[in-house]
Amino acid sequence: VLKMVNSPDIDSILAGNRLAVSRALSRVEDQTEEGAMTLSALFPFTGKAYLIGITGSPGTGKSTLTAQLARLFRKPPFGNDPMKVGILAVDPTSPFSGGAVLGDRVRMRDLAGDDGVFIRSMASRGVLGGLSLATSAAADILDAAGFSIILIETVGAGQDDVSIASLAHTVVVVESPDLGDDIQAIKAGILEIADVLVLNKADLNGVARAERALRNALDLADTAHTYYGKVGHQEQPVNTKTTLSGSWLTPLIKTVATNGEGVQDLYSAILDHKEYISKNDIWLVKSEKRLTEEMNHLLRDALFDSWWGKISEDRYQRILGQVLRHELSPYQAVEMFLKQPK
Amino acid sequence: VLKMVNSPDIDSILAGNRLAVSRALSRVEDQTEEGAMTLSALFPFTGKAYLIGITGSPGTGKSTLTAQLARLFRKPPFGNDPMKVGILAVDPTSPFSGGAVLGDRVRMRDLAGDDGVFIRSMASRGVLGGLSLATSAAADILDAAGFSIILIETVGAGQDDVSIASLAHTVVVVESPDLGDDIQAIKAGILEIADVLVLNKADLNGVARAERALRNALDLADTAHTYYGKVGHQEQPVNTKTTLSGSWLTPLIKTVATNGEGVQDLYSAILDHKEYISKNDIWLVKSEKRLTEEMNHLLRDALFDSWWGKISEDRYQRILGQVLRHELSPYQAVEMFLKQPK
Repeated sequence: VLKMVNSPDIDSILAGNRLAVSRALSRVEDQTEEGAMTLSALFPFTGKAYLIGITGSPGTGKSTLTAQLARLFRKPPFGNDPMKVGILAVDPTSPFSGGAVLGDRVRMRDLAGDDGVFIRSMASRGVLGGLSLATSAAADILDAAGFSIILIETVGAGQDDVSIASLAHTVVVVESPDLGDDIQAIKAGILEIADVLVLNKADLNGVARAERALRNALDLADTAHTYYGKVGHQEQPVNTKTTLSGSWLTPLIKTVATNGEGVQDLYSAILDHKEYISKNDIWLVKSEKRLTEEMNHLLRDALFDSWWGKISEDRYQRILGQVLRHELSPYQAVEMFLKQPK
Repeated sequence: VLKMVNSPDIDSILAGNRLAVSRALSRVEDQTEEGAMTLSALFPFTGKAYLIGITGSPGTGKSTLTAQLARLFRKPPFGNDPMKVGILAVDPTSPFSGGAVLGDRVRMRDLAGDDGVFIRSMASRGVLGGLSLATSAAADILDAAGFSIILIETVGAGQDDVSIASLAHTVVVVESPDLGDDIQAIKAGILEIADVLVLNKADLNGVARAERALRNALDLADTAHTYYGKVGHQEQPVNTKTTLSGSWLTPLIKTVATNGEGVQDLYSAILDHKEYISKNDIWLVKSEKRLTEEMNHLLRDALFDSWWGKISEDRYQRILGQVLRHELSPYQAVEMFLKQPK
């Protein structure tokens, strides 16, 4: 059994103490052993938060939309209760985190002064899978600290999509009309993970063309969808209950994040999806899948570390040398390592 | 030692037979055991090709630029010899590969009829690290089949950047002036991996602003750079030998891929970088690093598979169940699995 970390620390995190939360996040991002112990101690208190992934290409206005959503969860319409909101801005392309963090801070200045909001930029990058584990761990800490809505903003392309889809309960994919002729290409894969599709910057030229392209792509992807009213005309969505014969229909919602138009429709669609996955036990299935993947990932690392501790440096270097001289293929080398582990 | 695959198959690949190459690529993409054996048999004949990564956000015109480069390597200027060109279009976001492949085919129709060009779209996605291993394996097959230039086009964001940087000998990062206000944010991380930076669509409005932003970012990233002449004025690069006191200076090159402007400058910059890394043994260091990473990745998979073969399904499910009920943290579960592996 792992040693326990300072229990006062754990109590502070559970009480929502910002400094304790911040310290724990750093420990986890740095992948220290103390971080792992903190996560273990907090683990029984996790599983309550609702995780919303917000993903899309650079330039679609994800950050502005994330900030608007946070404001709405803090001051909700329809008589809903305000919720504590955690924001994780994951920027896998930025090792020094300069630009992104700065941009977020400007967009989220008012939120930063709200005690019910916790914003964290994560710039981790490098090791495969490291990003998703760190993000997942950060979400667990915010979860234990009582943030019941966690918005996870990621740049949408490649492996990180896969990660966000297995981490978040609702995945919001953000598009904009100014993406150029790659719009068709990028759609195919990313629609697969979209629970809610957003066409942001809906006040720009070309919105009709982009909307047609997205609706076509949705049709191709074989997920039905409802039609929402025009932005700027204050029409209500035709049908906010986007279910039909038990399956979820990915809605397409037009927004102008910079002035807030359409964001309330997005908020409603997310809550609809939350209700849908709660009713159908999908929440449970998703959470179990995520935990299983995490455990297996940690297991892989631990098995490699354990093997690495046993093999002699000499033997490893000798076989690696044969690979580098193209005398042995990597596959053949692995076979030798496994047959004779020492 | 692995069983040998049909040697006529291997001979056909080495002779550059298109059907044999195509079959081998499929086997490798499907991760069959036969694929692994083919790779092992071809391994002694690899290591000769020059791998060029072309990465950037959607909409920057990567595909058009890749096609133009391929044409230039086939009919080179300066009296250079034509080279056989392999093109791997990696689209990690597209599991059904509809849009991307179609787009590529239109852009590359003339190339598809050239026997010295082999184009392959790879739509693999899912398993972490699976993408880079499959791409690397595909490059090895084309390498063994005599394609001495391999262009690898990837969508630039997240983990795949890291992969392309460790796979390719020269990384070309493509930007365009119409990326919006995220341009600053995305630069920071991706510049780190750029050996050559391209500002494509240099005939669009806003090119001066984008160029300033990129030059500032290059300065911040602490890599020097040379100034290339204006697109459309046929000026020669100020200095194609972009080295200073032994270190490589990432050049910024403006292109209009759709009409070919500036592409010859890009071609020259790539050859300069090739010469630079060949002279300074960086080619060797990069190749060794790539092989070491691949072997370790395969080893990780093999160690997990071997462990998985030994543990009883009962015990695994029992401990996993405790994790899913939040009675054990994933870290604690892994510790139990390792202490008592059966």
